[in-house]
Amino acid sequence: MTAEVAEPPVEPVDTTIHRVRTAVDDLLSEFIDAHPAPVADPELAEGHRLLREFVVKGGKRIRPLLCYWGARGAGGTDETAPVAAGAALELYHAGLLIHDDIMDGSALRRGRPTLHRSLARPLRHPGIVSSAVPFGHSAAVLLGVLAQAWADELFGDTGGAPRRLFNRMRAEVIAGQYLDIQSHLDPDAERALTVIRYKTAKYTVERPLQIGGALAGASRSLLESYSRFGQPLGEAFQLRDDVLGVFGDPGVTGKPVLDDLREGKATVLIAHAFAEAAGPALRLLRAWHGNPDLDEKRAADLRQIIVDTRALARVETMIDGRARTGLEELRTCAIDRHARQGLTLMAERLTHRSA
Amino acid sequence: MTAEVAEPPVEPVDTTIHRVRTAVDDLLSEFIDAHPAPVADPELAEGHRLLREFVVKGGKRIRPLLCYWGARGAGGTDETAPVAAGAALELYHAGLLIHDDIMDGSALRRGRPTLHRSLARPLRHPGIVSSAVPFGHSAAVLLGVLAQAWADELFGDTGGAPRRLFNRMRAEVIAGQYLDIQSHLDPDAERALTVIRYKTAKYTVERPLQIGGALAGASRSLLESYSRFGQPLGEAFQLRDDVLGVFGDPGVTGKPVLDDLREGKATVLIAHAFAEAAGPALRLLRAWHGNPDLDEKRAADLRQIIVDTRALARVETMIDGRARTGLEELRTCAIDRHARQGLTLMAERLTHRSA
Repeated sequence: MTAEVAEPPVEPVDTTIHRVRTAVDDLLSEFIDAHPAPVADPELAEGHRLLREFVVKGGKRIRPLLCYWGARGAGGTDETAPVAAGAALELYHAGLLIHDDIMDGSALRRGRPTLHRSLARPLRHPGIVSSAVPFGHSAAVLLGVLAQAWADELFGDTGGAPRRLFNRMRAEVIAGQYLDIQSHLDPDAERALTVIRYKTAKYTVERPLQIGGALAGASRSLLESYSRFGQPLGEAFQLRDDVLGVFGDPGVTGKPVLDDLREGKATVLIAHAFAEAAGPALRLLRAWHGNPDLDEKRAADLRQIIVDTRALARVETMIDGRARTGLEELRTCAIDRHARQGLTLMAERLTHRSA
Repeated sequence: MTAEVAEPPVEPVDTTIHRVRTAVDDLLSEFIDAHPAPVADPELAEGHRLLREFVVKGGKRIRPLLCYWGARGAGGTDETAPVAAGAALELYHAGLLIHDDIMDGSALRRGRPTLHRSLARPLRHPGIVSSAVPFGHSAAVLLGVLAQAWADELFGDTGGAPRRLFNRMRAEVIAGQYLDIQSHLDPDAERALTVIRYKTAKYTVERPLQIGGALAGASRSLLESYSRFGQPLGEAFQLRDDVLGVFGDPGVTGKPVLDDLREGKATVLIAHAFAEAAGPALRLLRAWHGNPDLDEKRAADLRQIIVDTRALARVETMIDGRARTGLEELRTCAIDRHARQGLTLMAERLTHRSA
């Protein structure tokens, strides 16, 4: 690259983001439409329709955008490969969310019924207690598996470093989720941080950035920079998400603000509250966190305890520290100006979630 | 290839089968050992251990063997690629069985507790009725997903025709399973045959043969021969399995002979019985097929109805016709003598299941 004399004007970051999102959305629709069910069957067709809707209408495309900026940061000018890899990440993520919602027993996702709920069918023989899993659960497991097989197909035969990172990412997020399902109802801050690291920081930020970078032939040193930026940023993003899960506006988050508390999600926020609460506050936490009968009044009590134990303040400090660390790495690492602008904007949005 | 003058002596088929099985087993152990859990956690380590045991100790390696013979039939001499692809098919299948067992609520597989049963943990808060899925179910879904991600990794960047067949195979078996979970408790012969076609004939026989063939550069015409051989053979294999699921010896099949009847498995055999039974026999079928309280005495009644309605005889005729069609295709298609011997032996074993 020649010296920085007069760089050409770059596309505004929001224009790029919009363009990449559109390209990912288009590719996802095109891919799914090219993969109809191999057997003509109305129920299966309905399953495909719901899966298509879930994938095409859903999500902020965080992973594809990070994959794109990762490639861009490494000097990549080809957009086809990072868009395809990003769309594959989105399909993989759809499968993971579908399975997560089954495991958590969630009724809503993005403000709409979860897939296993949409697929629920009345029992044919209601008198018989069967050990078989309800149809909606089984069907949703299968559609999640299908989305992940598609992800793999769309990711394609990139070979080499991108494929190795994709494989590692899958193993990591499965491990993170495995730890997460254990920790429900047994909040522990250290374990919650490990879950965040594997289930969000690596999966949502670090690996997508690195996959994009690897597609554009990034050096080992740049891939390491992406780790140093991506890990703290990803942790901050999840900690922010956990705060919004208790204190957020359902109109923005798309899920009832009682869900995390009702499900007994063992977040860092909750773990800190448990660790610091005593007496009647601890009894309230124990009685109502993870209790499906939790109502708005009890939720307000729990929120007050989370504030009073300074759990909220601690988590805000954690978010702030991690966001700073990530942004400092981003400021100094060797990537082009446009990618730095793009990633800075994304970092701010991910940790504040104002937009 | 030169004219058939004096072919060199070939390895006895059983020696080949033993050698390929051993190579697949070794590769599976090696691959799994090279993929430890990315997070140190005792529960996750236990999950990995159970998955390893399930994969390494289980199964007759039908798909890898068919993949091997498929390559061999196409004149392939390299064994590495079909053994790796075959081991990948086995990993994929492990994931599928783990999920199947959850969906069916099966307690036993290959004579041992199913994975979700082995992973079952007592509820931490037994007083609270949660909508979350039990830990064992969620953990087993994740381990199945992991096995399938591994399958994909081990299948590798073959690209081209093998990868396209692998992708198609996944979509087909998911569709077959989707139809299967609908048809439980609602036996219909036509639907049962569609399920057999996608869930067994294509998945277990046709595609593995073709994947092996494609790895060895098989012509389109040979791949079509493999379809004409594999489809009827695969259907015969599943029909035999369905018969054994009701009339078989648990010491051979590894599962209690009441399981299929208790689960209400909607096989062709059962569908024929339902279609032909009348009066008290039909009432017995309706009351006890798919009834978890079924005991050995009622099972004997159901077996008698299956015999009396000639459902058993019809299915035996179907098996016989399909086995003949398959073997006739095998006798006349353009493959080498050794592969023909190997596939003939496998066809006999798959449809009689005597060995």
